[in-house]
Amino acid sequence: MAVNGRLKQWAFQSEEEEAEGGNKSSAKARQPLTVRTVRFMLMANIDESDKRLTIPLAHGDPSAFPCFQTARAAEDAVVDAVRSAKFNGYSSSTGLLQARRAVAGHLSPDLPYELSPEDVYLTVGCTQAIEITLRTLQALRPGANILLPRPGYPYYEVCAGFIKLGVKHYNLVPERGWEVDLNMVESLADDNTMAIVLINPCNPCGNVFTSQHLKKVAELARKLGIMVIADEVYGHLVFGSNPFVPIGKFGSIAPVITLGSLSKRWIVPGWRLGWIVTSDPNGIFEETGIVKCLKKQFDIASDPATFTQGALPQILEKTNEEFFSKTNDLLRELSNLCYDRIQEIPCITCPHKPEGSMFVMAKLDVSLLDDIVDDMDFCLKLAKEESVIALPGVALGFKNWLRISFAISPSTLEDGLGRVKMFCQRHLKKP
Amino acid sequence: MAVNGRLKQWAFQSEEEEAEGGNKSSAKARQPLTVRTVRFMLMANIDESDKRLTIPLAHGDPSAFPCFQTARAAEDAVVDAVRSAKFNGYSSSTGLLQARRAVAGHLSPDLPYELSPEDVYLTVGCTQAIEITLRTLQALRPGANILLPRPGYPYYEVCAGFIKLGVKHYNLVPERGWEVDLNMVESLADDNTMAIVLINPCNPCGNVFTSQHLKKVAELARKLGIMVIADEVYGHLVFGSNPFVPIGKFGSIAPVITLGSLSKRWIVPGWRLGWIVTSDPNGIFEETGIVKCLKKQFDIASDPATFTQGALPQILEKTNEEFFSKTNDLLRELSNLCYDRIQEIPCITCPHKPEGSMFVMAKLDVSLLDDIVDDMDFCLKLAKEESVIALPGVALGFKNWLRISFAISPSTLEDGLGRVKMFCQRHLKKP
Repeated sequence: MAVNGRLKQWAFQSEEEEAEGGNKSSAKARQPLTVRTVRFMLMANIDESDKRLTIPLAHGDPSAFPCFQTARAAEDAVVDAVRSAKFNGYSSSTGLLQARRAVAGHLSPDLPYELSPEDVYLTVGCTQAIEITLRTLQALRPGANILLPRPGYPYYEVCAGFIKLGVKHYNLVPERGWEVDLNMVESLADDNTMAIVLINPCNPCGNVFTSQHLKKVAELARKLGIMVIADEVYGHLVFGSNPFVPIGKFGSIAPVITLGSLSKRWIVPGWRLGWIVTSDPNGIFEETGIVKCLKKQFDIASDPATFTQGALPQILEKTNEEFFSKTNDLLRELSNLCYDRIQEIPCITCPHKPEGSMFVMAKLDVSLLDDIVDDMDFCLKLAKEESVIALPGVALGFKNWLRISFAISPSTLEDGLGRVKMFCQRHLKKP
Repeated sequence: MAVNGRLKQWAFQSEEEEAEGGNKSSAKARQPLTVRTVRFMLMANIDESDKRLTIPLAHGDPSAFPCFQTARAAEDAVVDAVRSAKFNGYSSSTGLLQARRAVAGHLSPDLPYELSPEDVYLTVGCTQAIEITLRTLQALRPGANILLPRPGYPYYEVCAGFIKLGVKHYNLVPERGWEVDLNMVESLADDNTMAIVLINPCNPCGNVFTSQHLKKVAELARKLGIMVIADEVYGHLVFGSNPFVPIGKFGSIAPVITLGSLSKRWIVPGWRLGWIVTSDPNGIFEETGIVKCLKKQFDIASDPATFTQGALPQILEKTNEEFFSKTNDLLRELSNLCYDRIQEIPCITCPHKPEGSMFVMAKLDVSLLDDIVDDMDFCLKLAKEESVIALPGVALGFKNWLRISFAISPSTLEDGLGRVKMFCQRHLKKP
């Protein structure tokens, strides 16, 4: 029939293209997956007859655990906003003024200059902040590329692939506490390179970059004539010796687009409130039309819920330091537990004790294992045999490593790492 | 300096392109604007020394008026979901299963077949539902086009322009109660046409398509081998003689993608919860890979807040009929008032009494006016002189018409249309 006829023709074309892509371009065949997609693949491998709790070591969302409950003040702020009936209508495209002002006021104390509400754009979580930032670059210069950390956060690559923005990967160096390989950054950058992405505190590595190192990154960005995209969604979640320093501190050296959200620090990733902030005291983004292009993206972008925006000033003002320090104390305890337990597991080593974010990267030595070919195989079998979900490094561009999230309850973490240990012992090569 | 140097170079290129575009392509010069953008242009023209209330006749968001307060049950559902602390985490990519199941259950009674949760994709309001649908078409077939109604809802055109999806416009015919010009649709469709967009109840015309006419549209879509994109965001907001019939009723004739949200019927556009529903009992979307392509879009799309998704089953179940009928009664009263008052205004005529949505289209006869050149001029001067914001038809592809929203309080509407009358009388050509 006609309706089938033409629709089918499109479908065929699209499948043919996919097939062609598979033959011609290995890049297309190796299409990156989001953390969510990989998690669902692993979840599908869980043995349903295993009556034990499935232990989620694969993602940065501890909100299901009572010990990671959000601040009562934040919850109250949202309820108040809903009950006020003042925030049921549409917001303005870059967000309610009072909410943008609150974000500017919240971030400015860590910077050597004052942010204005005009520097702030509210987004549907940090995910949309990333998407809009990458779309801005692609719109500014078709053919542009960005430099992504390896290991990294796969959403950047997936999103860039979707919007046809080029990517190149620079290394984070485990032996140097996961510092940026600055020489590699310099050698990768070309005339089409527009930005370097830096995630600090680092997902997936769990390190916190020093102020000195961040300054070097900014100086290199200046030398290369590129901007910094600073993913600080784990900002302030630090529990080691390095304090959290936003790289916007060096915004006068190179202009910075800072991405953040309530998701991690307030433990509410489902609330979907994030922000893009231009940390650019010299006004380079304005001068070069980047601000204009960024604003244009918001013409078609969906907005975060107006009542969550309406709640934002109260959330930022009323959440007390005690809540934040309790979270960081708990993360310190958990990261210590995680690090210690990993030491006891044969075939997994951890080169750097985590000091921020919710993750640690651990190296897998498959040569010690009998019937495990690589990290993906390890994680699939771990899911099946032990009902433990851990993220294979290959999903982060770092084959034969694991990303382990320790942001769950202490007893669950203990249980989970115990199962990993049993799993590894069971699969160890016999001498 | 280097950082300025290269960033500036990009900016120049981008500005050069814009300038070129301005010379070469009139399409680019006439870039469409969203309702929001036009509203802000008009708001900027308000005389700040005018102490009267600014009257918003330009948009479909009555939530600021106490007579249009949302249902208490809906508000309670969101508060309960927030207080439960069960919905602070990430959701799954197309939405929580229980929420998708609730939407399927909510829409199925109007259809001759049962929807399943698998047919439902939750979105950040209907805006994101439109965006994702258009991105799906563009991804399926670069070079594709869609048929949009004229007058229409400008976001479609703005969004299509952004993602480089082609558009063609078919007419809605005022003399036939704003029915679709079916002959024109047939003559416009070409090999690259993938879909016809139909907004019912109609924004901006205020008509409600009859079941017979919808069937004709579906049959034509089948003949042309295209799908129907049914924007039913104003679904059930009807108060004339035509009942609301979802075109998904004819999904076995041509496959339908239905777009909807809580925004209008629950009067909460700021809550940002919408949906895409495949109304396709023959499974053509599945068979042709369109479902797969649609799902892929959700890999990078931002999600609606998890707690609003969590609240959705309770919202849909607990909002009582009384709330809905009260809203429709009020809209009927307001539409009558609006229609009657427009009759008294020289130079504005209304060819069709509204019977659905929140709008009426009224024709402006500028030849009767002294110093008004067109609808945009009319609206700019109306804003300046009377602090009344009405949408010029040119923003909807329908020059020298006005879209008037009557969804405000009765006294404000009376006041607003009184000011429009005064304005017109003042500007009438002297005999």
